[in-house]
Order: sequence, then structure tokens, then C-alpha cells
Amino acid sequence: MDSGREPVYLMTVKDIGAAPSAESHLRTRETAAPVATTPGGGASLFCQPLGDKPMLGQILVAVSLLLGGGAALAAVQAPPKDFSKETLECVACHKKNNPGIVQQWGDSKHYRAKVGCYECHKANPKDPDAFVHGRQRDKTYISIIVSPKDCANCHEKQVKEMTESHHAKAGRILGSLDNLLAEVVEGNSGLVTPGFPQGNSAAAVSGCWQCHGSQVKVLKDGELDPATWPNTGIGRINPDGSEGACSACHSRHRFSVAQARRPENCGKCHLGPDHPQEEIYQESKHGVAYNANVDKMNLESPKWIVGEDYNAAPTCATCHMSAARDLPVTHDVGLRISWNNRPPVSIRPEQADAKMGLAGAIIDWKTRRNNMKKVCVACHQETWVNNFYTQYDGLIQLYNEKFAKPGLALMAAAKPLLKPAKFSNKIDWTWFELWHHEGRRARHGASMMGPDYTHWHGTYDLAKHFYTKLVPELEQLVQQGKASGDADKQKAAQALQAKLDEVLNSDDHKWYLNKLDPKQAAARKKAAAEFKARYAK
Amino acid sequence: MDSGREPVYLMTVKDIGAAPSAESHLRTRETAAPVATTPGGGASLFCQPLGDKPMLGQILVAVSLLLGGGAALAAVQAPPKDFSKETLECVACHKKNNPGIVQQWGDSKHYRAKVGCYECHKANPKDPDAFVHGRQRDKTYISIIVSPKDCANCHEKQVKEMTESHHAKAGRILGSLDNLLAEVVEGNSGLVTPGFPQGNSAAAVSGCWQCHGSQVKVLKDGELDPATWPNTGIGRINPDGSEGACSACHSRHRFSVAQARRPENCGKCHLGPDHPQEEIYQESKHGVAYNANVDKMNLESPKWIVGEDYNAAPTCATCHMSAARDLPVTHDVGLRISWNNRPPVSIRPEQADAKMGLAGAIIDWKTRRNNMKKVCVACHQETWVNNFYTQYDGLIQLYNEKFAKPGLALMAAAKPLLKPAKFSNKIDWTWFELWHHEGRRARHGASMMGPDYTHWHGTYDLAKHFYTKLVPELEQLVQQGKASGDADKQKAAQALQAKLDEVLNSDDHKWYLNKLDPKQAAARKKAAAEFKARYAK
Amino acid sequence: MDSGREPVYLMTVKDIGAAPSAESHLRTRETAAPVATTPGGGASLFCQPLGDKPMLGQILVAVSLLLGGGAALAAVQAPPKDFSKETLECVACHKKNNPGIVQQWGDSKHYRAKVGCYECHKANPKDPDAFVHGRQRDKTYISIIVSPKDCANCHEKQVKEMTESHHAKAGRILGSLDNLLAEVVEGNSGLVTPGFPQGNSAAAVSGCWQCHGSQVKVLKDGELDPATWPNTGIGRINPDGSEGACSACHSRHRFSVAQARRPENCGKCHLGPDHPQEEIYQESKHGVAYNANVDKMNLESPKWIVGEDYNAAPTCATCHMSAARDLPVTHDVGLRISWNNRPPVSIRPEQADAKMGLAGAIIDWKTRRNNMKKVCVACHQETWVNNFYTQYDGLIQLYNEKFAKPGLALMAAAKPLLKPAKFSNKIDWTWFELWHHEGRRARHGASMMGPDYTHWHGTYDLAKHFYTKLVPELEQLVQQGKASGDADKQKAAQALQAKLDEVLNSDDHKWYLNKLDPKQAAARKKAAAEFKARYAK
Repeated sequence: MDSGREPVYLMTVKDIGAAPSAESHLRTRETAAPVATTPGGGASLFCQPLGDKPMLGQILVAVSLLLGGGAALAAVQAPPKDFSKETLECVACHKKNNPGIVQQWGDSKHYRAKVGCYECHKANPKDPDAFVHGRQRDKTYISIIVSPKDCANCHEKQVKEMTESHHAKAGRILGSLDNLLAEVVEGNSGLVTPGFPQGNSAAAVSGCWQCHGSQVKVLKDGELDPATWPNTGIGRINPDGSEGACSACHSRHRFSVAQARRPENCGKCHLGPDHPQEEIYQESKHGVAYNANVDKMNLESPKWIVGEDYNAAPTCATCHMSAARDLPVTHDVGLRISWNNRPPVSIRPEQADAKMGLAGAIIDWKTRRNNMKKVCVACHQETWVNNFYTQYDGLIQLYNEKFAKPGLALMAAAKPLLKPAKFSNKIDWTWFELWHHEGRRARHGASMMGPDYTHWHGTYDLAKHFYTKLVPELEQLVQQGKASGDADKQKAAQALQAKLDEVLNSDDHKWYLNKLDPKQAAARKKAAAEFKARYAK
Repeated sequence: MDSGREPVYLMTVKDIGAAPSAESHLRTRETAAPVATTPGGGASLFCQPLGDKPMLGQILVAVSLLLGGGAALAAVQAPPKDFSKETLECVACHKKNNPGIVQQWGDSKHYRAKVGCYECHKANPKDPDAFVHGRQRDKTYISIIVSPKDCANCHEKQVKEMTESHHAKAGRILGSLDNLLAEVVEGNSGLVTPGFPQGNSAAAVSGCWQCHGSQVKVLKDGELDPATWPNTGIGRINPDGSEGACSACHSRHRFSVAQARRPENCGKCHLGPDHPQEEIYQESKHGVAYNANVDKMNLESPKWIVGEDYNAAPTCATCHMSAARDLPVTHDVGLRISWNNRPPVSIRPEQADAKMGLAGAIIDWKTRRNNMKKVCVACHQETWVNNFYTQYDGLIQLYNEKFAKPGLALMAAAKPLLKPAKFSNKIDWTWFELWHHEGRRARHGASMMGPDYTHWHGTYDLAKHFYTKLVPELEQLVQQGKASGDADKQKAAQALQAKLDEVLNSDDHKWYLNKLDPKQAAARKKAAAEFKARYAK
Repeated sequence: MDSGREPVYLMTVKDIGAAPSAESHLRTRETAAPVATTPGGGASLFCQPLGDKPMLGQILVAVSLLLGGGAALAAVQAPPKDFSKETLECVACHKKNNPGIVQQWGDSKHYRAKVGCYECHKANPKDPDAFVHGRQRDKTYISIIVSPKDCANCHEKQVKEMTESHHAKAGRILGSLDNLLAEVVEGNSGLVTPGFPQGNSAAAVSGCWQCHGSQVKVLKDGELDPATWPNTGIGRINPDGSEGACSACHSRHRFSVAQARRPENCGKCHLGPDHPQEEIYQESKHGVAYNANVDKMNLESPKWIVGEDYNAAPTCATCHMSAARDLPVTHDVGLRISWNNRPPVSIRPEQADAKMGLAGAIIDWKTRRNNMKKVCVACHQETWVNNFYTQYDGLIQLYNEKFAKPGLALMAAAKPLLKPAKFSNKIDWTWFELWHHEGRRARHGASMMGPDYTHWHGTYDLAKHFYTKLVPELEQLVQQGKASGDADKQKAAQALQAKLDEVLNSDDHKWYLNKLDPKQAAARKKAAAEFKARYAK
């Protein structure tokens, strides 16, 4: 994909170092001159010639050093001058035993920058997961896990941002409803491994942990417990105590930036009944444009400023992480979102950050929304963007006020009437899906302009299950409570009945009791008659 | 994507103007000579050089003019000779403020034909959404919305066809069940905007309207009410009274024909639980072939005749809109379909057109089916095509007779026993999904040979919900009616009971009462025993 | 896609014939010399020049003959020296009537090897579906169906392997639950065709049969009954008695190996609620890498050894069929799987093969797993692979022990209390989906590392429906049985009650009765409190 175009962007350091603009960018085509001319010299390691790419590694590094953390390029520290002898030893065996790994690395920027196996996998003998590997004559210590701390040796800024983000905290779901589900309701303790004689739940191991991250357990000699590894969950808790897994997105061993920028990359976790972000994106105009124009997306370009280096479509990365003209790259994915749609009632992201003790607690939603708008205006006029936010906010408000807050209040009133074990009542599942699945689909659908998810998978399912499941199940609880002969339950049943009456008689729900305002009812009746005349079979 | 091949198709006007055929088409390779040689001259506007494309604009236009509405090429009227001064003024600001828009346009055929911002956005001062924009010295009136009327200035034929199609009427769902759902059941009037002090439903605004179209409301100075814009719903009702949004499919500002021909483009709306056309296509042999051979699809070619310009696979556009050898392009998507599967019972498309007052009322389904067959035979032998239609018709008949007609009759009999507010009865949802979701999935699945949608998402779900939801819910209504003490209800309950007995004792349903013909029952028992011997755990 | 690279791999026979390795492979670049130099000579047939490909056909064949069934290349028998006169006659008409077919073939390897229409479609006059076609002067007999027997004329090894696989037996579902569903529950006998005056079920014809295969019925003059053809179901039962349809995967008439290797190709059937293999793959790291790097997959290469010819990602074909360094290609897709997840309780594949009388009965699951590991190690270190299998086996065990075996036992106990017609009880559907849909999704999800399918579409749905549907529906049967006044039913109800008590009081389910071990309960309570402090709204 356009590999021939790549060097042009990189060869003139001063132009790129300057404030990026379309004009300066183009001049590189005329004034391009290589920063470094020594070939990579790594060809002997590989069977496949590297074509016109050998010097790219050095160039990249040189550019990066000069840039010093520029907005659009990843800043990395000084790389080695040549492949280390340890790396050469790794490659000697693994190219025979696991050739794919070595070849992927050979196609990576790491290879071109002489950053090899050992540079990432080396370990301090005292590291909990360090072990001696290879021919042992050098007592070479390595570890299997390359943690964010390891990556930070070169990519400090990126790791710092990621560490401050919700991504790094994804492993902290212990104690959540989802966690109870996987460990108890869906699971058991049947997956016994050396590190866990008491067992783990296979539903958690092959389910939750693969996105949220495992707490990696080290056995003897640096071996990792099989329940906890393989694992590239983004909130993985590593043997060195760090949180996060860079390889969740930057898949080893090619570490392709193009792959990281593609929507499917995020879609490994951001999909499905509870947060179908990838499906929503793919449905949206943005996804349609992306799929039709992926070859014009310039995905391999180190400098990747929307509206400058590409214009065909945004990907997840574009809006949530990558650079716009007046906005730097960030690896904290929350810095541009103005609603946190995770909880039953949507809240502002700074509230969520405060709860979790994150640095983002001081960055209010308006600042974050303004950040996002800097991306939007690359392709949309300002009024368009503001109007979109009116529509989005409207959907959040509808969800919060009509379904979430009444639902929470009803469930609180229902609590004394429920069996004590969470999820042993059918209504536990009903309510969980209302906010955790359907309510999120509606909210996320509106946030990314995917109408099918906003409506059919969102508000339609919300309404359907509110009226045909939640309400009847609450009514049944009232009945059972009243008939229970238990004074406490009878009182609770009366309170629940009162709350339910209040909700159903409110403006949002009174249609259900056939109490629509006469004027509105008449207007609807007329419209329905007209529709029937137009369409009826 | 094969851009090098493109000019070949265009350079010899007389060959293309003749009746298209594989032979004449190839000769262009030998006799090709450019029609126009003056470079585009627009390079100074842009940072990105246009490579080998600059003269394509003029060529295209010249070709089009000579063709005069030829089957495979879009006929457009005479374009301007140079960029207008108004357009140059637009570009001067917007390339700074919204560079993506300008770049997309720079990659479009519009740019190459000197059709710029002003040519599409210019407005008559009397237009309801006209406003003065720019430096105002020229009192330049523009409008934000480019309506089909505007597009018709150059693309008259296409707009006329679209305007006669169901696409243009998609905004007329006011009064439908879907509309009741979004505005009342799922929604409220909480989205208050300047143009709607009484509010709109956010579920409609971010849901329905994004596919069906909004009725755009103009505020002061040409500003558009944020509930009604941004909106690219295909049935949008525009300030000038026209129906439709060309940008629903021809996304601004690249207006890529390749994108419009891709299945994802249609999939922005044609997907999901109620009409998963895109999912069905992607599953089908057609979709599989498309994905494997997209690079061979010649998607950018102005002339795009199936079996001539491409043969790897059809897309949605191929079958429903684009040219075959003996069939012209059309923007009326209904002219090749022989069943309208929208209503509870499938009808013929001419019936639907008559109801809606469309010109298609005089074109019967056989004519439309023959149109479609002209597409099919490009790659399938005639008997194959006829046999396919036997299979498709069989599925429609099964659905209509076994589920739809009995279902309608049962629901009519149930009506006196229901609560008056539509969707306040669980059975309202059950029946709605049976025909509107599951029944459509079965029918659409068969129409495009997607077996998973025909069966698992279609007839399986139909049967499951007919027998485990609809029938028990009807039985409960009978019981409640009988126990009501209300003579009218008791009578209605008896009538419903009779109808239900009639349906369940019919040949299609008597298996449910274990009344399968003894011969058939024996044959099944034998087959089941054989199967068990082969497969049982 | 990289067509220029292809010939290099093929031209030096001795290198390819040797044990394949990256080194020898590369040397072909230097020593490459064409085996055959006569051009194809077929250009006059086509409008599109064939570029640099004309001699590839002969080369391929020569290489294959020398290889004698080599691991990575498909062995074919000697092809004709020139196009047959019959083929030329076919082409003369069909290029006019159905140009797409002819063009697809013109882009195929068959064309390049002079294998034309007649070579595949020729028939013995005694074949049940033979008929005279064409200008008849030669009494040319052909048949529409090209069966595996026909393909075996050249591709003997591949056909033999396929014939021994479960793929070839997919038509044998007659008598299964799925079959009962489509023919009786969802269907009727309304699709009357010349060969079936008694009718078929359209739900089977357009549903099941399109993946599983029809039993093709020949009418007069070689015409095929429209209920049974068009059909490319992989287990099709052909007029010559053979089982299977090569065109299920090798779509006519391009027969693209690249297409066959793509995941969507398998996804025509391996998708949806009951076995969403394609969705799982697309979600997984493998699918993400594939989509990002499809251009690097070398999909057109005849020799296609993972870790040698490509390394970016595996496709379905890679793991289940294609060559690894120490593993030959196979068309028996079961030879690398170590669990058969089709039945309610997962079994070992050799058990399934024994039941069906397949040769695989003597190949145990350990051998098959070792085969698969030879693929995995191309890109993963051995411990990684072993650990993965620990995780996968854990999930199978959880499913089998917690849900499948208790579920089977409960359903057996419930049988005397059910209405006799299968699927006339709601619980029939509940249990069917538990194992056939949800249980498979969990198992397949874990097998391919798609966490969303393992958890949300898998164990979550399993648990939800086990506790909120199966258990309450069983309790209702107990109640009804006890109240029936029928001694047999009362006894059965007591037995079912006892079984249900046993299951719900077991360690796996006692949480539902709020009988969690106090220690575990306390630990969970603490974790929940901590979580709440971190995240609560």
C-alpha cells in the first residue's frame, strides 16, 4: 500500500519539524534528501530482500530525535547502532522454530531501527519473570512479557498517556457485575493450573480477561501460568506491577502503525452486544467512506494529520487518538469524549476520572469536546459539528431521563422483594441488559451516527424490554410481595407499586396507560390514517 | 485501484458511443487517442499534485455530451470552462478551516470538470434557506443544502428517476408504526431546538431520520435547525420542497462513483434486524466473490456494464441500478424487483407504486423480473436464473401462506381483547417483529441467496416466535377474555379461539397438535433413527 | 495482487521439489528458468490480453507432475495440449449469452492450462444427467453438474481427502432436529416442482440445502429440478452418486485459490447464531492482522506455506487445510481439530468419525492437535501454544460439566412431562439453543480466541438462559405434573424435581440458591465494595 510514497514524507527533516501544514508537506517532494545513507546491513538475517526500505529505520529515528515529541510523530529515544549479539542469537534459533515471528519483526520499524528481540525482552535478573535463555554462556536474562515499562524505555510519552487512561485500568473490573457473572454465574473453579490450585473460571480466562487483561502469574523459571498467559488484554497487570499491554493494539511482532489505525484493531474488544462501537462505525458514513477509500488513507505514514495527510475518512484512531492540525496525538483515549456512557446513567468523563484517581479529573468535558471538535472541523463546517452535538446530547438526555433514572429508582424500590443472590432473579438480567447493553447501544450509536444501532439495537430494544419485561416483572414482584404475608415485603410492595405508578403516569410513559394528551392522540391518529392510505397492503 | 486502466475506456468517443460490446470495447486499446489535451490547470489550488488525472474531467464531459444519455454513463450537462470566482473564494477560506472537504472535492470528478463549491451551493435570494456568505462584496447567496433540484441542473435524468422511486419517499413514514415507536414509545419531546420549541424525539432525530430523512427546517439567515440537520437521509424533505438526498449515496465531497457502487454504501441503511440486506449480500456467494476480487471490479470506470467491464461479482448497484448489456442504468431502484417485501404480506411492486402514486404503477412485476434477468444472465445460464426464481417464489409463498396471512387474521381477531394503546400489549411487539423483522429476513435472505438469513434469522425465528410467543399469547387473551365477565370480550374470545383452532388444525400447523399424517410421521421417525445412528453423541 | 511475484516461485522445478525452505525458495529468484516456453495461444478467444500469464498453465502442470503430491502444491494430472473443439464451440455461444462466465474462466488457471468448458462438463451418454448440447453434429454429451468425480479426473488427491471429510457428509442431516425444523416446523410442502409433485419445504430449499447440499434430481434431458439446483451446498448428493460440491469453496468459473483461502469464503456457511466461526475469526487477533495485511498474504501463490510464503496472519485455510513446514495440505478439514463441538456434549473427533464410518476414526485427537500445533509454531512459541490449549480445554470442560451434562440429564427427566411433538414445547427451543447455538458459540469462541463470542454470545447467554428459561420452565413442568392427577406424570414430576434439586445444589449452581461458600461470598462482597468505590456513578 503506497510504500513508495512513504520515504518522501520523511526525508526532509526541517520541513517536518516545522509546524505541519499542507504546503510545507508538499515541498518535501522537491527538496527531499536522505538524512542517512548507510544501508541497514541486516539483509543477511533474512531470506526476503527488503527492497527500498533498508534505510528507513535510521531516517525515522533521526527524524524523531529532531522532532522531540512533535504532534504527529511518535517520539522515541536513541536506538542502537547495530543489532545486538543477543538479538542475533535469538534470531538464529527462532527463525527456524517460529519463522513467522522473525519475519514479522523483519517487516517492522523496529527491525529497521536495529531494535531486536533482546532490546525488548531483556530482563533484570531480579525481575520476577526473568529467566536465563539461549545458550546460557552469557547468562542472558530475558522475560516473556514486554510490559509498558519496557516499552517506555523508548516510548515514554506514549506509555505515560496510556497509563493515565481508562485503557490501562481495564483489569480493575474485579468486583464488578461482569466479573461476578464470569466467575460465579457462568463459571466455576474448574480451570486448575500450576499457579492456581484452587482454580479459575474458564469463562473469565477465555472471556473477560482477553479484553480486560489478566493478572499475570509467574511460575518457576519465568514461566507464566497458562490461565494468565497468553493474554493481551489492554488492562493486563504485569509481573513488574505495571498496568496495560501495548500489544493489545500494537500487535507483535510487526507493530504496524497502519494496523493500529484501522478500526478492526479496536474492534477486537469494542464490539458486541454491550458496546458495538466497531459495528456502529462500520455502519456510519465514516465507515462507509473508510472502506471505499482505505487505499487513500495513507495509513503507513508516520505523520498522520487528518485533513492534511489524509481526508477520505476518519478511523477510531483519528478521532480518539491521532493528530489534527491544532491537536497533538494522545494515547489517553478519554481526552476527547464528552460523555462517559459506561454507567447506568451517563456521566461526564471528569467525574469518572475522579472516581478512579486519574489525572483526567481536572479536564472537564467541555475541554474534551473542544478537542474533538478540532478533529471534526478538518472535514465538517463548525455549525455542522455543533448541530451534531445537539443531536447527540438529545439522545443521552432521552436515555438518562426516560429509561435510566426511572429504571434505577424502580430497581432500588424492588430490591427488598428480590431473592438475595444477584442474577438469580430474572429481573436482574432484564435491568442489566437495559443499561449495560441496550442503553449503551443507543448512546454509542448516537455518538457515532449509526442510526441502526441508535434505534433498532438501541431505543427500540430499550422500550421493548422496559415495557414488556421490566414493567411486568415489577408488577409480578408487587403481586408476590402483597401476597407474601410478610409485613416488610407487603410494605415494600406498596412502595414499589407507588413508584411504578409514578413512573407510568409521567409524561414519558403515560402513553402506555393510554393517557396520551388528546391533542397529540388526534394528531397521531390522523397521521396513521394518512400513512395507511399511502402504504397499506 | 487500476487507475491506469481508466483512461483507455474513455479516450475513443465513437467506440463508446456505439452499442457497447466486448469487441468494440477492446478496440479502444489500439485506437485510443485523447479527446482533450489541455491540463486541468487547477494544480495551483492544491497541495497534492493530481498525477495523471488532470485531463480526465474534460474528457469525461466531452464523452458524456456525445453520448446523450447512454446506458452506462451518467449524462451531465455542459460544465463551466473554468472555476468560478465564487468557488475560488470559498476554497480560499475553507481550505484553511476545513481542509478535508476541499481535498475531497479536489479528488472528485466535479473538480476535474470545474464544478466547484458555488456551482452546487449557489442559491436564489428568494430560496427559503439562502443566505449571504463570504466577503459579501458580491452579495453571494448560497444555501447549505444541495437538494436534488440543485443536482438536477446537471444530472437531470438521474434525479428524475430517483424522484420517482421509493427512495425519495422514505421520509413519508409519518404515521407508520415505526414512527409511533420512535416518537412516543421510545421517545419523548425532550429535544428542544430553536425551530421546535415543542420539542422532537431524539430517538427519531438520531435514529429514523438519519436513514429516512428529516424535514429540514430553516431558521433565520439560512441556518438549519439542529434537529433536522446534519441529515443525509435518502428521503429528506428539503427547504425547496424536493424529496431526496443525493448525498445519502453520493457522499460529499468526493462523490466517488466507486464508493456508491460498493455494498457498504447501501449498507448504511440496508442492514440490521428489520432488513439485513447488506449482511445477506456479504454472506452470499456474490459477497464472497466481491470481497475476494474487489480490485478486479473496475469500480472507478464510468462505463460499468456487468459481463463487459467487470465479471468478478455483482454489488447492490449492479443488480438494482447499473447497466447490463441490454439494460440501461436507472436510479429507480424498484424497477428490477418482482416482490415488495415491506408489508406483512408480500405484494407485487406495481401495487405498492399505485398506492403511493408513483409512475411505476404501470410497470408490472414480470417486466421488472425480466429486467433483473438481464443482469443475471451476464454470469448465469438462463435455466439457472429461472430455477432460482422458483426457489425464491417458493419462500415468499411459504411465508405468506403459513405465517403472514394466518398471523394477520389472528391479530385482527385478537384486537377487541387488546389494550387500546398500540405497543402496550406484549403481543403487539411479537407480531410486529414476526412480519417486520423475521419475516423480512427470511424473504430478503431468499431473494439474495443468503441461507443463514433465510433460515436461522428467518424461518427459524418465525416458527420459534409463532409457536412459543404468538400462539401462547393469543391463548392467554382467550382465557382473559372468557374470564372477563364482559359479554363483548367473551364473544371476541370465542371468535379468537375458533380462529386459532382453525389455524392450528390446518395442514401447515397441525404438527403442533401432534396431528402429523401417520405416513409422514413414520417417515420422519425412521429418518431420525438413522440420523441418531450416524451422529448421536 | 503481487501477480508479478508468482512466476518466480514456480520456474525452477528442482528447488521446489526439494524440501521447501526459505533458503531454497529464495534461490529460485536467481536461477529461475521457464520449464515451458510456448505461449498459451488462447488470446484470440478473449478480449482481454493476458499480460505475462500465458505460460503459467503449462509450468504449473509440469511442476505438479514432478512434485507428485508435494505438500504445498495441488497435484493435477496431465492437461490437454490445446483447447478442445468442443470447448471452442461452448465459448462461441456463451461469450455472447453469458459473458461473465467465460471471462471468469479466462482469468482462471484452468484457462491457462487449456482446461475448458468441455473438459469439466463432458458426460458419458449413460450418465443420468447427460444431454446433447451445442450444434449437435458431434452428439456432444455434457452435464450441468460438475461433480467431485469429474474434478477427480485431475485433482484426485484433493477429492479423496474431501470425500473422507465431514464436509462431504453435510447432506446427511436428513432426520436431524434441524431437518425436522425446516421441513415441518418452519415449512410445509408448498414448493411443488416437476421432480417433486408432493412438494418440498421452501425453508429447506433456500435455507438448509444451500449450505448442506441438495440431493440433485434429474428431470428429462439432463435438466435439473429447480428445488435441487441451483445448489452449491458442500454435501450435495450428485446425480452420479458422489457426495460433495467442490464449487462450494472453489467458486466457478474463476476457481480462484486466493478466494478459497479467504475467510469470507468459509463464512458463507460458517457464520450465524449456531456457529459464528467467521465472526469469531474476524474479531480475533488473527482476523485483525489479516484485514490489515491482506496485501501481504501472498494469497495467489501456489506454494503457500505459513511462516515461509506468508506470515502476516492465518486464515481459516491456513490452520485447517493449508501447508505448514512439517505438515502437508489436506482437504479433510477435521484432521487438525481436537474437539468436535457439534453435539450437545463436546466429543473427540475420532469418536465422531467412527460413528459416521469415516477413515478418520483411527486418527486420535492428540495426533490432530499435534498437526495443528505445527501450524501454530510458525508464529507462536511452543509454550504459548500449549498454554492456549489449556485455556481452550478449560472452556470445553466448563461447558460440558456445568451446562451440557446437567442439561441433558434434566431434559431426559423432563421428557415424560412434555407434549409429544418435538418443538411444540417452549423448553424444546430453550434447550436446543442452549447447546446448538449458545454452547457452540462459547466453545468456538474459545477455540479461536474471540472473547466476545466466548463470553457475551457464549457463556453469558448460556447462563442467562439456563437460569431464566430452562430452570423456570422445568419448575413449571414439575408443577403441572404434580397437579395433573396422572400417576405416571406425578412420578415423573417427582423425579424431575429430584434431579433439579441435585443440579441446583451442586457446586456449580448452588450460588443460585444463595448457598455460596461463606468464604467465597465474603471475598466477593469485599471486591464488589471496592469496585463500587472505584466506579460507581
